[in-house]
Amino acid sequence: MARAAAGPEIERLIQLLARLPGLGPRSARRAALHLVKKKEQLLDPLASALAETRDTILTCETCGNIDTQSPCTLCRDNTRDRSMICVVEEVGDLWALERAAVINGLYHVLGGTLSPLDGVGPDDLTIPKLIDRAADPQVTEVLLALNATVEGQSTAHYLMDQLAGCNVAVSRLAQGVPIGGELDYLDEGTLAAAVKARKAM
Amino acid sequence: MARAAAGPEIERLIQLLARLPGLGPRSARRAALHLVKKKEQLLDPLASALAETRDTILTCETCGNIDTQSPCTLCRDNTRDRSMICVVEEVGDLWALERAAVINGLYHVLGGTLSPLDGVGPDDLTIPKLIDRAADPQVTEVLLALNATVEGQSTAHYLMDQLAGCNVAVSRLAQGVPIGGELDYLDEGTLAAAVKARKAM
Ligand SMILES: [Zn+2]
Ligand SMILES: [Zn+2]
Repeated sequence: MARAAAGPEIERLIQLLARLPGLGPRSARRAALHLVKKKEQLLDPLASALAETRDTILTCETCGNIDTQSPCTLCRDNTRDRSMICVVEEVGDLWALERAAVINGLYHVLGGTLSPLDGVGPDDLTIPKLIDRAADPQVTEVLLALNATVEGQSTAHYLMDQLAGCNVAVSRLAQGVPIGGELDYLDEGTLAAAVKARKAM
Repeated sequence: MARAAAGPEIERLIQLLARLPGLGPRSARRAALHLVKKKEQLLDPLASALAETRDTILTCETCGNIDTQSPCTLCRDNTRDRSMICVVEEVGDLWALERAAVINGLYHVLGGTLSPLDGVGPDDLTIPKLIDRAADPQVTEVLLALNATVEGQSTAHYLMDQLAGCNVAVSRLAQGVPIGGELDYLDEGTLAAAVKARKAM
């Protein structure tokens, strides 16, 4: 018979923390304990930061980035090159590329990859919106920065076909992204090299 | 030049998450992203749970447990054996023993171990309060469930001396091979202790 020493509020907190990637049940318990022991330094500001994030985050209606405004900070930034759209699978990929500071254009977050077996078709991703954006005469290049996985590459090929009607050069990241590699796990140098050596498709 | 794609609110959230044990900067970023992608299922309830914890947690003035009331649930529980006090270093140790449901007495959280070199003396821990509690005629046993480290054991010896004046039996956890433990994986200190405390079969 396991008993809870901590009261239902803290048990609930532990259960929620255990659902974060990287934390299991045991480390969630340690994290909860750390939080209650560091109330002023960590629990209070984290509670505030989460509440503020909860109350302010939005998905950018243009590119799919997550921000506190829509269009997002990147889409509003007039110093960025509006002739290039960099297409990524997930917001985490966009963040990884921004950390590496290798894209000066705009982004487009697909929201995943095509997966006919799982019933994920073009309309389940933001592909129609991408085709609309690429049809803007201002846009001259679409860089497909998808993961070097089977799903990522077959989605890239589908997009290449769809973009054939738009007057844009379609490029992909250079080989250098390891086979099977997910962008979010790569170091900034690898990302920078892969962007610099990108190839026309 | 690294750039933030996510806005200052989310960057702040990432920095705070990175201070949780078990999460580094990269996994904190993943956790933040997971939170904003699972807004209804995870971010909203976690923000609420943290705010509730922040607003309700207290340190029990009797035993040092963390709970939403003081005296805590364990100290108020009249089904527990009030003749025994189990002394632990940290609240996490109390929680671990409660999960194992092996202590039916009360607890006392020291708040650490004695460390003269770091300037941690008896008054920096809850040792005076423990001596007071142990002087209660109702109390007949004090179990020193401290870590099997140099610091834990030297603190245990100090407490044993201090408790000599109280009319209580002082005990400590048995040392030996953990249940399921493979000898090959155990350190030499554990093996030595297990041999020294060997029992006739
Ligand atoms: Zn945007
Ligand atoms: Zn208590």
